[in-house]
Amino acid sequence: MNSGRILSVQSHVAYGYVGGKAAAFPLQCLGYDVDVVNTVHYSNHAGYARAGGTKTTAAELREIFESMERNELLNPSRLLTGYIPNAEALSAVKGLAEKLTSENSNLTYLLDPVMGDSGRLYVAADVVPVYRDMLPLSTIITPNGFEVETLTNISLTCLDSLLQALTKLHVTHRVPHVVISSISLQPWLARMLPPDLRPTDEADHLLCITSSRRDDGSETPFRSTIHAQTVPLLPGYFSGVGDLFSALLLGHFDPSTPPSTALPRAAAQALARTHAVLSRTLEFSRSLPEEEQLPSDDEKDKQNPLRKTRRMRGRELRLVQSLDILTEKRDREMVELPGIWDVSMN
Amino acid sequence: MNSGRILSVQSHVAYGYVGGKAAAFPLQCLGYDVDVVNTVHYSNHAGYARAGGTKTTAAELREIFESMERNELLNPSRLLTGYIPNAEALSAVKGLAEKLTSENSNLTYLLDPVMGDSGRLYVAADVVPVYRDMLPLSTIITPNGFEVETLTNISLTCLDSLLQALTKLHVTHRVPHVVISSISLQPWLARMLPPDLRPTDEADHLLCITSSRRDDGSETPFRSTIHAQTVPLLPGYFSGVGDLFSALLLGHFDPSTPPSTALPRAAAQALARTHAVLSRTLEFSRSLPEEEQLPSDDEKDKQNPLRKTRRMRGRELRLVQSLDILTEKRDREMVELPGIWDVSMN
Repeated sequence: MNSGRILSVQSHVAYGYVGGKAAAFPLQCLGYDVDVVNTVHYSNHAGYARAGGTKTTAAELREIFESMERNELLNPSRLLTGYIPNAEALSAVKGLAEKLTSENSNLTYLLDPVMGDSGRLYVAADVVPVYRDMLPLSTIITPNGFEVETLTNISLTCLDSLLQALTKLHVTHRVPHVVISSISLQPWLARMLPPDLRPTDEADHLLCITSSRRDDGSETPFRSTIHAQTVPLLPGYFSGVGDLFSALLLGHFDPSTPPSTALPRAAAQALARTHAVLSRTLEFSRSLPEEEQLPSDDEKDKQNPLRKTRRMRGRELRLVQSLDILTEKRDREMVELPGIWDVSMN
Repeated sequence: MNSGRILSVQSHVAYGYVGGKAAAFPLQCLGYDVDVVNTVHYSNHAGYARAGGTKTTAAELREIFESMERNELLNPSRLLTGYIPNAEALSAVKGLAEKLTSENSNLTYLLDPVMGDSGRLYVAADVVPVYRDMLPLSTIITPNGFEVETLTNISLTCLDSLLQALTKLHVTHRVPHVVISSISLQPWLARMLPPDLRPTDEADHLLCITSSRRDDGSETPFRSTIHAQTVPLLPGYFSGVGDLFSALLLGHFDPSTPPSTALPRAAAQALARTHAVLSRTLEFSRSLPEEEQLPSDDEKDKQNPLRKTRRMRGRELRLVQSLDILTEKRDREMVELPGIWDVSMN
């Protein structure tokens, strides 16, 4: 049983599991007290045809943080930030992170720079520079491939570009731990894996990569400790998966172990559990009546928005039905790639 | 493992466990998907020296409910409503309850008329008539003694007054199930208990009373099925206890069993678990350094508001540390008081 207090600042939806709704329950099951501040208060996530509700203003966020502080309630051992819809609100969260990190050098801060996916931003563009400013405050960041590209201005097209992007995040932006939770296993990524990690059907797999800085980043040439693991790609789109993964990663991260093992161990736990919850969700969605699992079809969705809604509803994470997965021992061991920096530089 | 979907509409605090924060985790541990709509977004509960944040407006609540409905996401099998700060917001919730009960005659609606305690209202006075209007929509209500008095305008001073109040709630207000979760065990209440239920130290006990209507309430003279159980009173003040009890009661209520047993069985489960969580919380608070468990002293609290804050902080429910209590089998059997209506009428 863990003990400790995690302050989670992310979105809230009434129905379904994204943002805080995907993060709080798993962390509570691990034994953490979770302080929950909501950056939005919506009916449901944006994958549905419609969403109603309000964004929390920067002033409201500041008032809540200040009130907690004045009551001596602002004392988490870990900070988790996720979806924050605009630069004003993000600046309020930046102020919080600055305060907490300056007061507690042992704070573990997982910053999930939720900005977009597959080439599309789903936050206001002016959040990007604020996130860049915040990177040095973080302990761990969990961008997806698109978010790595957005933060570093480096397109991920080959092993060298990946290593350049990691170097920029670790050295320029002073991030100790980077986790790319899932990136599609393109051939150049598959080639960097040891043979026994390479799946026979590369197209049907995702890759999870962790990279930990070994020291203060001043080593020349820069080298980080990189681990990787693949997971089978499940068909269809599920929401809240990244939020669940980040929460589990933070919950399983043990800052008292050496940096080179703390991150891959936590990622192994988060990866296995996320994949298991997702598999259970897929199994459930396949058990639904046919009209609830209509395949993606943008044109038909446009004619009948409820088509998309019904598909989404059947694909909400089966989180409360996964208490066993969240609490039992399981991992998907991350494999170190010790030679990767040498291979690349040749 | 239960399955089903509970829509919970009550307060949200970032830190600690009251309202939705006290209700969602236990219900999720029981296997329910919980849809969470927040009536306030505060830093902490009102027991602390200060609280910051905002109330959700009636328009915002309506927008969320409507958006859920348009997305076909407004389909809970159970509804749970708790703290709602003013009459406008409560009217929006009333609209929701009317809609859900009219569309689904099997909806189980637990209405906790959170208004005050120990003679003091902590919501605006104009909520009282709205709650009275809502009573016929409910399946179960969980008022405390003061809230029974407020709803019925009957002072609870003797067995006859209690039976009159229950009759008014069951007959005039058409409530099927009434649970008075905790009322201090005054001598007139102790006298109505069978000898083996009567504790030797009455002053140190609370009484939980359940009352289920046997039919449509037209029987003359009116009789309900009444059960009772005592629990030892734990010293000091804890927040969120009523919210936890109501959530557990709803979670354990099995509408497929006869009305005369469904309520006392659910109450037995809720009572035992709430008491166990509370005992664990007290044990924890006693393990804290002395400066964190300063006894109640209004004068000293006024001079130093942090005194009260620190006491409150050490008394937040140990909810996430009670996963075992929330999921293992345990109850505190409710005992039927079959002769109570006859005794009274003599």
